[in-house]
Amino acid sequence: MSGCPFGGQPPVDSPTGSAAAPDTPSDGGMPSSGGGTRRLSRRGLLGLAGVGGAGAVAGIATGLLGHDALATAAAPPADNGSVIPFFGDRQAGITTAAQDRLHMAAFDVTTEDRAALIQLLKDWTAAADAMTAGRTTGATGAVDGPYDAPPEDTGEALDLDAGRLTLTFGFGASLFEKDGKARFGLAGRRPDALIDLPHFPGDALEPNRTGGDIVVQACADDPQVAVHAIRNLARIGFGKARVRWSQLGFGRTSSTSRAQQTPRNLFGFKDGTNNLKAEDAALLDGHVWAGAGTRAGEAWMAGGSYLVARRIRMHIEIWDRTSLREQEGLIGRTKGEGAPLSGGKEFTAPDFAVKGNDGEPLIGMDSHLRLAHADQNEGVRMLRRGYNYTDGSDGLGHLDAGLFLIAFVKDPRTHYVPMQMTMAKQDVLALEYLKHTGSGLFAVPPGTRQGGFIGEGLFA
Amino acid sequence: MSGCPFGGQPPVDSPTGSAAAPDTPSDGGMPSSGGGTRRLSRRGLLGLAGVGGAGAVAGIATGLLGHDALATAAAPPADNGSVIPFFGDRQAGITTAAQDRLHMAAFDVTTEDRAALIQLLKDWTAAADAMTAGRTTGATGAVDGPYDAPPEDTGEALDLDAGRLTLTFGFGASLFEKDGKARFGLAGRRPDALIDLPHFPGDALEPNRTGGDIVVQACADDPQVAVHAIRNLARIGFGKARVRWSQLGFGRTSSTSRAQQTPRNLFGFKDGTNNLKAEDAALLDGHVWAGAGTRAGEAWMAGGSYLVARRIRMHIEIWDRTSLREQEGLIGRTKGEGAPLSGGKEFTAPDFAVKGNDGEPLIGMDSHLRLAHADQNEGVRMLRRGYNYTDGSDGLGHLDAGLFLIAFVKDPRTHYVPMQMTMAKQDVLALEYLKHTGSGLFAVPPGTRQGGFIGEGLFA
Repeated sequence: MSGCPFGGQPPVDSPTGSAAAPDTPSDGGMPSSGGGTRRLSRRGLLGLAGVGGAGAVAGIATGLLGHDALATAAAPPADNGSVIPFFGDRQAGITTAAQDRLHMAAFDVTTEDRAALIQLLKDWTAAADAMTAGRTTGATGAVDGPYDAPPEDTGEALDLDAGRLTLTFGFGASLFEKDGKARFGLAGRRPDALIDLPHFPGDALEPNRTGGDIVVQACADDPQVAVHAIRNLARIGFGKARVRWSQLGFGRTSSTSRAQQTPRNLFGFKDGTNNLKAEDAALLDGHVWAGAGTRAGEAWMAGGSYLVARRIRMHIEIWDRTSLREQEGLIGRTKGEGAPLSGGKEFTAPDFAVKGNDGEPLIGMDSHLRLAHADQNEGVRMLRRGYNYTDGSDGLGHLDAGLFLIAFVKDPRTHYVPMQMTMAKQDVLALEYLKHTGSGLFAVPPGTRQGGFIGEGLFA
Repeated sequence: MSGCPFGGQPPVDSPTGSAAAPDTPSDGGMPSSGGGTRRLSRRGLLGLAGVGGAGAVAGIATGLLGHDALATAAAPPADNGSVIPFFGDRQAGITTAAQDRLHMAAFDVTTEDRAALIQLLKDWTAAADAMTAGRTTGATGAVDGPYDAPPEDTGEALDLDAGRLTLTFGFGASLFEKDGKARFGLAGRRPDALIDLPHFPGDALEPNRTGGDIVVQACADDPQVAVHAIRNLARIGFGKARVRWSQLGFGRTSSTSRAQQTPRNLFGFKDGTNNLKAEDAALLDGHVWAGAGTRAGEAWMAGGSYLVARRIRMHIEIWDRTSLREQEGLIGRTKGEGAPLSGGKEFTAPDFAVKGNDGEPLIGMDSHLRLAHADQNEGVRMLRRGYNYTDGSDGLGHLDAGLFLIAFVKDPRTHYVPMQMTMAKQDVLALEYLKHTGSGLFAVPPGTRQGGFIGEGLFA
């Protein structure tokens, strides 16, 4: 693989000529590894491509590095505001101001070897650190790689910046046990909160949109960056993990920061007005961040969270033939401003007691706003981070469109299941206009630091 | 539907209060229609929402207007650079600098009534004019509409600008005849160039991704704008047309202007370097714009074009295990710079004669660059306007991802079929890494002017 890999390259004026450029400085304090090996940032590559014509082909011997080595060898990217660091006490992509686009994938781990799984998580950690920083996952070959091996980055994001990419990892119950038997030596490590979700009335879950051993949420402002990230994680996982399901979301339906405008879902209504925000530190502690649990075996989840994913098909064609009066009544808010029907503006607190001339509550008893509100759910809140989706048509003349709900909660037993059970039974919106076609619940471990790997506490 | 539609509205401080704001000025020279009826631009609505709290609810009697009336009643939007006019000699969305996102849908017309089809095209014309200008397709109800009727715009783009939306319409062969019988009195009007595409070797076309009576290409820089546009055309078409297939494209794979950077496809290579550009007026006349044909019945296509749509699944997992040498050899270009393997930079003309040390051409005989190049195809060119797509997973552990090819050509008999037949038989890239799963060919009529409707020449 090393040797003289450029033998078959075009003879003149090639971009590989830029390989003669000096090494990009290595990360602060981390030694650059591999003699003559360089790992260019995607942005660095662009810069070099511009001067590529000046160099002749240099036969640099470049070996394939394991992915563990990539993070340390990578150049620090210039931060133009597009970089959200991967490493930290908590995983990014939860309270991060919601990016515009989503690509989420659930993987099934196909190896049963504990060491292989740990190596996969290490490799994914290194790749996630690189991609969120706007770097490639390895030698692309385009500039710095061997010629007779597959590129270590697929390349479609080469000209793009980091795009505020975040990659958030979670573990499904099936990673811990299958058919009643523990996997990967993880007996006793499955957190009690990582339940098997009950069947909710009206659920129409499709097996190939449900479950999965490991989920990865890729959010970015550029969809090509998010797709590139999932695709390269899948590439790195060849032989160890396979894509079980994947979902693109084209538009965010939640704000997770007060600096963001509330977006609209495909019902045409503002969504997530009451969402928890990054600024609500105390509420996040109370409703989003998981504790250490009650058993030693689940203490690794302290500082993590639980991710609920629900693919919710909307019957938009029926909705679109529904009067504004009924639409607003079902939601409990006005369509334009998003104000509660009890009056005020978008962020006015709803008054569930106030009644209209007909003696009925202005915010109906079976409106979504009432049924979903913390006041009606023992005070529980969630951090929602969902996306609008459109996946072609359903073969029956309709768009296959809806909401891909993502929610982060402290404990799904208290913070998701009771509310969803209420919704599924009483919410006219859910009963008549929604169909849940996919589902997943994942334990999202806390973050990790340079030198660690995602989920390491689980294997400690 | 009129009368006092706001009887059930919240009593105070509602955004409907903004209905008391003065009428937005009407379009230059066009009289505002409907007493008290206003059609707010989406941006106008936003502005009003900001002062909504100041007004009390005004019980404005607002009737439902037919969609024909909307365009004339609509306010002219402020142009912040996001508006590409719908009306013109040619349809927008062909030489328009390619926007970042796509939502394309093919509709089957379910009525057999000629007048109903014409009315549908008139309604779609009015809606397209409104949406491309950043306006709603009618009363949203949110501010200006009746309360006991469905909103005339679904609302999810209310807070967004026009997003450089273009809507491009085309007619499939099945609009003209079905089972050998003419439809809609269109006997003799099907252009000779609107052939039934032949079966190409390796085609694996899925019926529910293929064909259709009418296609609409929605391109925009914001995917929510493109999705909103298709969804509202589907809404307007209720009872007359149904969605046959729909395709989201998340990232453009072509430039159609010299001002644009060449994007990358999911092979990680720059795509469309040699694409025809808006600046190539003479080449566009020769290769993209249709003439009047040879029969009077097809003269309505003069100034139009033919749209080829091909959903091309890429076997990216196999590609990702292919060496850089083979990848570049198959494409005929370098991966980083996109230069032809004969040397130079991205836009250097390929030299198909130059050979390497081994005596073989540097640009291989079966490379995609060679086989697709005009020099190898009797000089024909096309204007490509395709998009990367990812539609979840295939149920076999892989992403369902690839290229949604869109090409505009003067005549598919000379400008598409021969080249695609060559590709399907000889191009190793096509043979080993691509699978065509959807297909469509559509006659794209010339543009229309205010007061006309799209495709009117067909019905003259």
